[in-house]
Amino acid sequence: MKIYSVFVEPKTPGNIGFLARTMKNFGLKKLVLVNPCNLDNSAYYQASHARDIVRDAKIYDTIEDFVKDNEITTIVGTTGTAGGSYNVPRIPITPEELGKKMHVDGNIALIFGREGDGLSNEELELCDILVTIPTSDEYPIMNISHAAAIVFYEIFKNQKEYPVENMEIASYEDKNVIIELCNEIISKLDYPEHKRKNVEIITKRIIGRAFIGGRESKMLRGTLNRVNIRIKPEEE
Amino acid sequence: MKIYSVFVEPKTPGNIGFLARTMKNFGLKKLVLVNPCNLDNSAYYQASHARDIVRDAKIYDTIEDFVKDNEITTIVGTTGTAGGSYNVPRIPITPEELGKKMHVDGNIALIFGREGDGLSNEELELCDILVTIPTSDEYPIMNISHAAAIVFYEIFKNQKEYPVENMEIASYEDKNVIIELCNEIISKLDYPEHKRKNVEIITKRIIGRAFIGGRESKMLRGTLNRVNIRIKPEEE
Repeated sequence: MKIYSVFVEPKTPGNIGFLARTMKNFGLKKLVLVNPCNLDNSAYYQASHARDIVRDAKIYDTIEDFVKDNEITTIVGTTGTAGGSYNVPRIPITPEELGKKMHVDGNIALIFGREGDGLSNEELELCDILVTIPTSDEYPIMNISHAAAIVFYEIFKNQKEYPVENMEIASYEDKNVIIELCNEIISKLDYPEHKRKNVEIITKRIIGRAFIGGRESKMLRGTLNRVNIRIKPEEE
Repeated sequence: MKIYSVFVEPKTPGNIGFLARTMKNFGLKKLVLVNPCNLDNSAYYQASHARDIVRDAKIYDTIEDFVKDNEITTIVGTTGTAGGSYNVPRIPITPEELGKKMHVDGNIALIFGREGDGLSNEELELCDILVTIPTSDEYPIMNISHAAAIVFYEIFKNQKEYPVENMEIASYEDKNVIIELCNEIISKLDYPEHKRKNVEIITKRIIGRAFIGGRESKMLRGTLNRVNIRIKPEEE
């Protein structure tokens, strides 16, 4: 399993350093910066003994570019409990639940950011899994490196308790085929446009959250193909 | 239950601010600084919306002064996994185990620090419970505010899952009577001086970890009194 920590549009170099430090505390090494600010000395200073992680960080313009370039199988987004009027249907899991799910092989991206604003709806839509840290209603906005520390801790804790089995997970392509098959089926179900979109997103997220195995994905493709063939378009 | 977050000899004002912020994220308010550096603007800046916690922090010269002044019933120390040649016998619990134990009434102190050096052996001896966060062997030294965030998170998480029952815990005085009784018994057991000290520390820590209830403490005192009376000094 490869775990990437992705920091979206960092504005404070010191926070990049803090993120790198807590990554190294929990045995993570791959840092990705999406459209970052300039790295100044404070990034390296706050990284302390994790300067190498800051130095080796990969930089991308968008999350999508990074995902394609690294064949990411599972995208995990982090969101505040603040809630609000989101258009994206979200059933977030806890960091603990995430930690218990992470016994898989695959390329996993943990997305953090943005400072203050969080992820946009478009970015949230990319995510297979959404994680929310339970916080006080009075002040739910955590510093990004604190939120990351808790997510890393839960992953590390669970891997220590139950050593990784490296269960074979469906490949990036396999998963995309399944999602496309689902979307094709969904498109035949006469949803109004906006509702169809929501159904697609939820389906995609459930598939992402399920950590489908390689063998399972073959079976699932077969089943979905059968379903797809059986459903005729409504108009006739 | 009152929870105090105690930062021992902070040297970096920014870390005080970060600690205050993560306290507020998890609904904690009482910050204690033991022999701190001067608080400059960076402490308030990093606190973000938790400036009030920094402003209201109480300052003490020593941990002992704070403990006596606030009738602390349980002292929880945090230590790195780094280990080393400590003289103090330590059976640390995980943050998760701590979180599950915190369903009690009482005055609880969570001790963090020092930056870089950790707590001294004398300070560790004061602790009823030691908590260690599982970390990578390669770089186990966490920033204090990250370590604190994880401890706070585990406490908060468990209180959310299982609402606090406010089980009546033994008072500060009751616990001290029990510990003194234990020490009196231990003193009669012919340990060589250095070993006796260790036995005392371990006993004290077990008592602290047990979160003994008010009624239980009465029973325990009775039992220990009986034991104490029965054991005669060796020499005769």
